[in-house]
Amino acid sequence: MEKNLKQPVALTGDRPTGPLHLGHYVGSLENRVRLQETHKQYIMIADVQALTDNYEHPEKVRENVLQVTYDYLAVGIDPTKSTIFIQSMIPEIAELTIFYLNLVTVNRLRRNPTVKAEIQQKGYEENVTAGFLCYPVSQAADITFIKAQIVPVGEDQLPMIEQTNEIVRAFNRIYNTNVLVEATALVPPIARLPGTDGQAKMGKSLGNALYLSDPSDVVAKKVMGMYTDPLHLKVTDPGRIEGNTVFAYLDAFDPRRDEVAELKEQYQRGGLGDVVLKKRLIDVLEAFLTPIRQRRAEYEKNKDYVVGVLKEGVDVTRAIARETMAQVKQAMKLDYF
Amino acid sequence: MEKNLKQPVALTGDRPTGPLHLGHYVGSLENRVRLQETHKQYIMIADVQALTDNYEHPEKVRENVLQVTYDYLAVGIDPTKSTIFIQSMIPEIAELTIFYLNLVTVNRLRRNPTVKAEIQQKGYEENVTAGFLCYPVSQAADITFIKAQIVPVGEDQLPMIEQTNEIVRAFNRIYNTNVLVEATALVPPIARLPGTDGQAKMGKSLGNALYLSDPSDVVAKKVMGMYTDPLHLKVTDPGRIEGNTVFAYLDAFDPRRDEVAELKEQYQRGGLGDVVLKKRLIDVLEAFLTPIRQRRAEYEKNKDYVVGVLKEGVDVTRAIARETMAQVKQAMKLDYF
Repeated sequence: MEKNLKQPVALTGDRPTGPLHLGHYVGSLENRVRLQETHKQYIMIADVQALTDNYEHPEKVRENVLQVTYDYLAVGIDPTKSTIFIQSMIPEIAELTIFYLNLVTVNRLRRNPTVKAEIQQKGYEENVTAGFLCYPVSQAADITFIKAQIVPVGEDQLPMIEQTNEIVRAFNRIYNTNVLVEATALVPPIARLPGTDGQAKMGKSLGNALYLSDPSDVVAKKVMGMYTDPLHLKVTDPGRIEGNTVFAYLDAFDPRRDEVAELKEQYQRGGLGDVVLKKRLIDVLEAFLTPIRQRRAEYEKNKDYVVGVLKEGVDVTRAIARETMAQVKQAMKLDYF
Repeated sequence: MEKNLKQPVALTGDRPTGPLHLGHYVGSLENRVRLQETHKQYIMIADVQALTDNYEHPEKVRENVLQVTYDYLAVGIDPTKSTIFIQSMIPEIAELTIFYLNLVTVNRLRRNPTVKAEIQQKGYEENVTAGFLCYPVSQAADITFIKAQIVPVGEDQLPMIEQTNEIVRAFNRIYNTNVLVEATALVPPIARLPGTDGQAKMGKSLGNALYLSDPSDVVAKKVMGMYTDPLHLKVTDPGRIEGNTVFAYLDAFDPRRDEVAELKEQYQRGGLGDVVLKKRLIDVLEAFLTPIRQRRAEYEKNKDYVVGVLKEGVDVTRAIARETMAQVKQAMKLDYF
């Protein structure tokens, strides 16, 4: 405990809009399992943020709060080392968001590259809701209420950290305080895992995701349908490694690096069929996923324990949130009695 | 108490950005003193809303929370009949605001006539903050968390009630519930009291306000400097009633209606000087303000009692806020455990 107090605070999290997939593992979960050894790590299940583009489907958000928690525990997030909490159960985040909205202009939010890209991608354009436009401000509240120093994010989320730090500086300057702490983005060095169809991004809505909770037959089916090299028609043809999804997955999950290197050479020369490679990947993924599935099954049988983890996480987080809020209100002179 | 439960709920309030003035009394406070006899009245000291355009001056907001409370009690708001509370002490308002932001488009907020006029008036234009643009959503949270059925407002605030009811209908439809209640605007029949300079609106920033807490010498000085009829140069000249501030104040505060009617006739004929009229108005206002000043002085001596009124108001209001929030979260399926 004494040791933990000196560890830097890290915040990570996920929108609970679907079960977590291998892309989450490679891009984030794996890193969190490491991070919890050296950081005081908080993991937020961002249900309020999920509602900004799912407000008409709250049942989807609700269902996935528990599913995501199962995924966390199954991959090795240790609740004695990491604190998992549900965003909507920390009202101080909403309070901070309201105060921060005064420190950001509408035009600044409209210029946020991440939000701009998402508005275009989702086709919101003229119908963008205030909640969606303001979600970077809500994120600033997520990051600052816990005084996170380290925020692991993908490259595309860097503008969010920048927006957060702008708010931190404005708040500390205007209210003549040092209550809020600037955050540093930690961009993982590992490349993004492509979808099973070869697309750069894996996602539920794209239908190209391989889930941590997929059973063996589903994994096999998805791997057998994976995108490889469309010009590699005969076994004897030379094949391409670049953009070949199967090799991207082997690079991420096959621990026998030497053998993978040899297979790559053989594939490029010609004489190595996709089916052989895919069967190897199935074995590799089965070896990786089997213990995860087993742990998940155990936790699913002990739902009360998992709910207890969330309850305790909320309690621990709430105590810190109350403390930050008291400091913020003191700085803003709103500490009446 | 039993009677109170059947009374319709009314919400009123003020931004604590300055002491309350005679314009507040005529346009609102007088009505609240009546309303508390027939309604379950909640009076919100809107410090969070005050910060949307005073976020750089929190000390001004803080100081006026207590000043406004003194004004309330001095004019006859009875804490056993009305519940006075501080907005920032009800975090559920912030939580609701965040949920409601998903139900309103940015363009809808930009079209809000009140916000549009205020943005122009304050010269915000391109630099409008997200907090200012979104304050109608925050107001919807103020009105709905307490399930207000009646909201006394000036004509210019009608678009706010409309926006609130749009949110209520959207929420109840999307989340298939009847938790939220539509509000009815109650526009007082009394005309707005002009500023001492004859401008239509009385306001601190306009420098034309006569405060409930002004001492006798200040009242006398402000009345003697009041705008009358600039063409009424000699006592014998005929004078104009329309736009004559002194008559507007006599209409609002002089209980001897017959005499005021006679004075109007005499003024229009010619032969009645401004000084005579103004001296009458000073007497009328002194008669009105003296008991208010006395009560205020009593409350100022008993600051602990006044703070106690606010504390109890917050407690009572918070209990209702928690209940509404539990219902809202249940409807949104965010009631995890």
